[in-house]
Amino acid sequence: MIYFDNAATSRIKPDSVYDAFNFYVRNIGTSPGRGSYSLAIEASRMLYRARKEVATFFGIDDPNNVVFTKNSTEAINLFFYGYLKQGDHVLISPYEHNAVLRPLHLLKSKGIIDYTILPEEAVYSPELHLKAFIKENTRLLAITLASNLTGQIIYNKSLSRIAKEEKIKVFVDASQGAGKMLVNMKDDQIDVLAFTGHKDLLAMPGVGGLVGLSQLRITPLIQGGTGIHGDSYINPDAFPDSYEAGTLNMPAIWSLKTSLEYIRTHIQENNKKEASLLERLLIQMKSLDKVILYNENYSRVPTICFNIKGMASNDVVHYLDKNGICVRGGIHCAILAHETLGTVKTGAIRVSLNAFNTEQEIDIFIKVIGAL
Amino acid sequence: MIYFDNAATSRIKPDSVYDAFNFYVRNIGTSPGRGSYSLAIEASRMLYRARKEVATFFGIDDPNNVVFTKNSTEAINLFFYGYLKQGDHVLISPYEHNAVLRPLHLLKSKGIIDYTILPEEAVYSPELHLKAFIKENTRLLAITLASNLTGQIIYNKSLSRIAKEEKIKVFVDASQGAGKMLVNMKDDQIDVLAFTGHKDLLAMPGVGGLVGLSQLRITPLIQGGTGIHGDSYINPDAFPDSYEAGTLNMPAIWSLKTSLEYIRTHIQENNKKEASLLERLLIQMKSLDKVILYNENYSRVPTICFNIKGMASNDVVHYLDKNGICVRGGIHCAILAHETLGTVKTGAIRVSLNAFNTEQEIDIFIKVIGAL
Repeated sequence: MIYFDNAATSRIKPDSVYDAFNFYVRNIGTSPGRGSYSLAIEASRMLYRARKEVATFFGIDDPNNVVFTKNSTEAINLFFYGYLKQGDHVLISPYEHNAVLRPLHLLKSKGIIDYTILPEEAVYSPELHLKAFIKENTRLLAITLASNLTGQIIYNKSLSRIAKEEKIKVFVDASQGAGKMLVNMKDDQIDVLAFTGHKDLLAMPGVGGLVGLSQLRITPLIQGGTGIHGDSYINPDAFPDSYEAGTLNMPAIWSLKTSLEYIRTHIQENNKKEASLLERLLIQMKSLDKVILYNENYSRVPTICFNIKGMASNDVVHYLDKNGICVRGGIHCAILAHETLGTVKTGAIRVSLNAFNTEQEIDIFIKVIGAL
Repeated sequence: MIYFDNAATSRIKPDSVYDAFNFYVRNIGTSPGRGSYSLAIEASRMLYRARKEVATFFGIDDPNNVVFTKNSTEAINLFFYGYLKQGDHVLISPYEHNAVLRPLHLLKSKGIIDYTILPEEAVYSPELHLKAFIKENTRLLAITLASNLTGQIIYNKSLSRIAKEEKIKVFVDASQGAGKMLVNMKDDQIDVLAFTGHKDLLAMPGVGGLVGLSQLRITPLIQGGTGIHGDSYINPDAFPDSYEAGTLNMPAIWSLKTSLEYIRTHIQENNKKEASLLERLLIQMKSLDKVILYNENYSRVPTICFNIKGMASNDVVHYLDKNGICVRGGIHCAILAHETLGTVKTGAIRVSLNAFNTEQEIDIFIKVIGAL
């Protein structure tokens, strides 16, 4: 089987990640912040070490600015609902995932906020085109790191620079890309970032997070047991605990700590491999007349998006599946990206690679596509 | 090491549960509802089988009435924020966990709802005392299955019967108890129930859920990618997908499916063992003059709550920890229960057993307590 759906979830994890998960459930197995006996304190220490690793990974100073959630969708909702106020205006890219679009659209439909979908030129040449879209009440620029549909890199530092001049907060949805690219929030002037563990960060499913360059002070999404200040009738004003009510998924958090260490030590060789696989794939795909490639010349993570002339994307997916190749077709939880590419009716096929893929797999894929 | 903190999290899982988790991450590893290739369809099938097992376990007909969340705290927040409307009144027991109290208190402090904390007699003798607390705008009775602090069983069928007469919805927080007791929502007339996997249900951390006797129609807590209807600008009106935006923690869900099967086939022998361990513990604790037991004569799951005369609860915890025994002291994320018992200042010590504990562990514990 050839797995080319790494943008949905990375199916193969480094051995150390499986081991870390199993170590936690077999040898620790307790919840952090929920007791004062040694093993519970050890769990709290491990939680702190995981926060520290996430902080280092994203280039922030204080590990307590890392909030763990179940995935990036929860992190994004936590931030938008907790930060945005009546009358705010938000700028987003035309490639945002539904996890960014939908909470904003709900807030808009309730008359709480308004948002503007930027055209591509405002995202790629913000020096020339971004300011025209900034209003007096613009409080947030929310940009995905890379498109989940095409793999093209959307976020760039110039966006931050201009937003900062206008005192607008910068939020990056790093669900796609973080792990294949390194993001330093301090250098890039990113105020808040959401991530998920199970995609390019190579952790077990069930962990994501919200990271603040400085301490977040927003309304919690979820009220409940926080381990500390149990005598308060609402979540205590304690950071990050106030945003993490309920039992944390500590084995997954520990697997994330381990996968981030793996990525930091392997990113150069993995990037090299991914670039080479991507080049091999793109060159061959470009040579096939029946293939329509989308935005193939942009800088990207190793994901491409295409259709086959005269075929529904889901028929191509089924044909590939019969040949043992897993890719995603149809609509990819990012309606804006489909609108931008003009693929709302047809859907599109996505091939998303990572460093666990091989040249041989690319060549088999091309052969199978060629035989269509 | 003797682990007596099973009410925080069950540390030992049946072998089949570890195996199920590892099977999923090693052999499936894809996300359900996110693709149409065979392995993604298999993931969706497994998700449905897990919903079916949860439905069977809690005695409801339609597996699609099972919504998976990260834990019970998220499930409770989803239900309260999604169901309650301006002007509603809620009745709760005096033993509710902070996961129930805090979202309600926040809604109250915003002037949206009001709630009444029932006295014990209204919970234990609802035929005589409940109706006095029902108002014209009472829309919900929210009751914990068992106290997380004392282990006493709080929910009883008479509460449902009277609530139903008054057309009030019944919500049960089954975080404590479900798995040690079987709850049949249809027989018990429970409209909505929240559960968590990692406690008495013996699953891996990172999965909980909200179960409806009929189809829930509430406002989602989280907006985002739903796999289906990706072209909609907000979550589609599809059940249960609308409440599960973002990637599900499928390995943990599959571990839950397996742990529920284990429980259904072992509950009789496990209940017998737990009852015998509990009796052995209580008889010996009652014989110690220095021990103050709380609500020791109530029907309960195998959890007890106590203090030692003249000692802070956390000092007792540290003393036990030095002797290799893990228990929780202090304030237990259930301020109402502490107020009810009069232990807000002192805190209290909780010993929570399950069928993986042994008689020998009880005897060692009693010896160590006796030597204080």
